[in-house]
Amino acid sequence: MARRRRPGEFELIERYFRPLAGDPGAFALADDAAMLRPKAGEDLVVTTDFLGAGIHFFADDPPESIARKALRVNLSDLAAKGAEPVGYLLALALASDWDEAWVRHFTSALRADQKSYGISLLGGDTSRAPGGMSVTITAIGRLPKGTMVHREGARAGDLLFVSGTIGDAALGLRIRLGQVSPKPAAAMARPLLDRYLHPQPRIALAAAIRAHATAAMDVSDGLVGDFAHMCKASGLAGEIDAANVPLSKSAAALVTEEPALLATALTGGDDYEILAAIPPREAAEFAAKAKAARVPVARIGRLVRGRGGPVVIGRTGRPMNLGRASFDHFGR
Amino acid sequence: MARRRRPGEFELIERYFRPLAGDPGAFALADDAAMLRPKAGEDLVVTTDFLGAGIHFFADDPPESIARKALRVNLSDLAAKGAEPVGYLLALALASDWDEAWVRHFTSALRADQKSYGISLLGGDTSRAPGGMSVTITAIGRLPKGTMVHREGARAGDLLFVSGTIGDAALGLRIRLGQVSPKPAAAMARPLLDRYLHPQPRIALAAAIRAHATAAMDVSDGLVGDFAHMCKASGLAGEIDAANVPLSKSAAALVTEEPALLATALTGGDDYEILAAIPPREAAEFAAKAKAARVPVARIGRLVRGRGGPVVIGRTGRPMNLGRASFDHFGR
Repeated sequence: MARRRRPGEFELIERYFRPLAGDPGAFALADDAAMLRPKAGEDLVVTTDFLGAGIHFFADDPPESIARKALRVNLSDLAAKGAEPVGYLLALALASDWDEAWVRHFTSALRADQKSYGISLLGGDTSRAPGGMSVTITAIGRLPKGTMVHREGARAGDLLFVSGTIGDAALGLRIRLGQVSPKPAAAMARPLLDRYLHPQPRIALAAAIRAHATAAMDVSDGLVGDFAHMCKASGLAGEIDAANVPLSKSAAALVTEEPALLATALTGGDDYEILAAIPPREAAEFAAKAKAARVPVARIGRLVRGRGGPVVIGRTGRPMNLGRASFDHFGR
Repeated sequence: MARRRRPGEFELIERYFRPLAGDPGAFALADDAAMLRPKAGEDLVVTTDFLGAGIHFFADDPPESIARKALRVNLSDLAAKGAEPVGYLLALALASDWDEAWVRHFTSALRADQKSYGISLLGGDTSRAPGGMSVTITAIGRLPKGTMVHREGARAGDLLFVSGTIGDAALGLRIRLGQVSPKPAAAMARPLLDRYLHPQPRIALAAAIRAHATAAMDVSDGLVGDFAHMCKASGLAGEIDAANVPLSKSAAALVTEEPALLATALTGGDDYEILAAIPPREAAEFAAKAKAARVPVARIGRLVRGRGGPVVIGRTGRPMNLGRASFDHFGR
């Protein structure tokens, strides 16, 4: 059977990427570069993330899932800085066995996410990648001048809040790798597997973060390890009350079945939730704004004077021993 | 023999990438994102390019050369739009056999180029890439509001200028692949091989492009194919006088030896020179500014009313048949 002809680089751009580039500064991808014209009184925030097959996703994941994850992990970074997303640049490297249907599904998911998040494709690059597929996205956000929230800046006494639930994606990945087998398997596993594939960037929380957080970051490498970065950047120590860390129903059931998995949840990564230091007198207002934005937030700890990694206080009231507290993309 | 321990992601950032991030908006790479604060009255220009081993460079190229090429192809895009470079984000994916010396050499070349071009690393991402190394750079430039030069905008009668010499990199690649063997081999080959590895972004020409070009782009996919894009975007046809296309001494000697290589030079790509449409009454001033900026430019053709790909008039005065006129990163 004859192999179906695949479109060339220019045809791919014409058919699948140009329709995503609605922003006037993208020049319909017919130029060498995009233009950004920030409004007076605004700063721009820029972040880039490389996602490679076999590292950040599985090569046979649905193309829609790969697209969503690549875009959303970047939007999550913007939200944690208090920025509203504007647009993104995409460098897509296709493995040698790519086909047109894959690109069609990939871009259809980008289109849906662009609509959800009010952003546009600004530019990009499409190439072959003999060694394996990768997606590199550079996302651009904006915020009022001088309001970007940093990792450093937390003060002793600030309360630690986190959005959503923690550990779902890490447990989902362990299930997928066959390292964990939940008893009532399917129903419990599905939401966890879904969280690994589909982070939910907390863009709706950006304004409240900007208004109230002294420091914030997104949880990508694991709650405890990322909190350690925030503590170190702020020159403080910190405490997390494990009993207060929000777990989904599925994660809680798994941890009940196998208590050692609590450490996996707290250190596993891929959460893409927001971790924020909030001064005590602003905590109620922050929580009210989060509720109005329909983003669940929970108070899980505090920043205190001192140095050294954060202490995680277990359900027994004693510090937990978590072993490897963070996630290194070279170590997996 | 014990294998030497390799540094982890955080150590790599600390030792090699943080020293490159001098811009205050880079927050010493200790945050999730970088900040850009454009000056009033300025637009930003953004471009991204993926370079993969085995496609855009050879995996065993010197790490310094890979770094320079990845950065400079992006700076070339900015220059062609009339923008001055500000900084860049780097997503580096390391193949499984990477070692620390490679990263040290790679970043030392970035440091030298940052100094030459007056830019800073703003942010990035470092990861493993099981399938093969890749470097994705997103470069950011700035220019006075409303002065970005586009691919479209040329007018019938505009003269076509190109910077530097054309075809060196393409001929260098053919020599490297053993497809071309120059007779007095070494001396002739060296500058061509060097041009393939080390593009020279024409940043010094950006101001003159902004002031005089009705349309401009960089020559990355081949002179004739790229000019075809400019013609199409401007709704015009075009002519190139092959005899006026500047060739280096080495390229000219090769073409004399094997005349068919002229087509390779005109269509081969990887030139990273600037192609600009200049109104005839501004041509002398543009050429004078280029001379003052020490960038050689040559008048090689014109834009004319009509449609269809550009005509290349050969040394005999008759149109040349060039076959495949452009370069497709999927086709190589």
